[in-house]
Amino acid sequence: MIFKLDERLAQDSVYVAHLAWCQLRLHKDSRYPWLIVIPERPLVTELYELEYSEQVEYMRISSLVCKVLNASFSPHKINVASLGNIVKQLHIHHIARFEYDETWPGPVWGLGKAILYSNEHLQKMVASLRQTITEINQGEIDVNYHHK
Amino acid sequence: MIFKLDERLAQDSVYVAHLAWCQLRLHKDSRYPWLIVIPERPLVTELYELEYSEQVEYMRISSLVCKVLNASFSPHKINVASLGNIVKQLHIHHIARFEYDETWPGPVWGLGKAILYSNEHLQKMVASLRQTITEINQGEIDVNYHHK
Repeated sequence: MIFKLDERLAQDSVYVAHLAWCQLRLHKDSRYPWLIVIPERPLVTELYELEYSEQVEYMRISSLVCKVLNASFSPHKINVASLGNIVKQLHIHHIARFEYDETWPGPVWGLGKAILYSNEHLQKMVASLRQTITEINQGEIDVNYHHK
Repeated sequence: MIFKLDERLAQDSVYVAHLAWCQLRLHKDSRYPWLIVIPERPLVTELYELEYSEQVEYMRISSLVCKVLNASFSPHKINVASLGNIVKQLHIHHIARFEYDETWPGPVWGLGKAILYSNEHLQKMVASLRQTITEINQGEIDVNYHHK
């Protein structure tokens, strides 16, 4: 069975990179630097359903994403969450949070209204994130910026 | 430096078990079967700050907790999240969600009001969870039910 990105995820976010077998996407909501890791495994809805070796590699990927958020935005806290109550396809939020952001110290989901980046801002964010990923990744994870 | 459980976590939840070097606690809010994994590592606030070998073992622990929730409650979805905007000490929520629960499909944090278990119900939950942990754990994780 072939992996197909969920339509809602495709609509709400833009492609940043492939980190091994995971797709990394940037949420279009500019209120938070918000990255989403999507393991390209069809029908999987929970992390623990991945093969154990994949779970271990996922931890490396998640750590890299957190370090990229830290290096790029110096947030007060990073929120990492796999919820999936609405979109079942396994996706893990990695969100840089600030004590002055709109919904702090609450969660980001379901509160307030998304403020979309301009196209220009979105492109700059993606370019900057890719540069930071390249700088921080120490060759442990196979990184690719070309969406097949 | 010695690990000391955060006071707010201690107040909002009860001890269930030690899973290796992590404390497993049950949230007192009866609206959701809600387990919290707390790595007993002082000063750590993010998962990626753990040693890599600890991150790998954490994945085993988190998987066990999800399987215990699944076996015990057959939820529609499990929410796994490390937020920490209020309580900085690293703790990872593992919450069994149902399509008919109070805040579905929203997140559980900051919405509605906790409905506490009775003491009797809480004790039964803990006993039942321990039994399921013992049944599901295949000897991979060092499990202990005695709080030191």
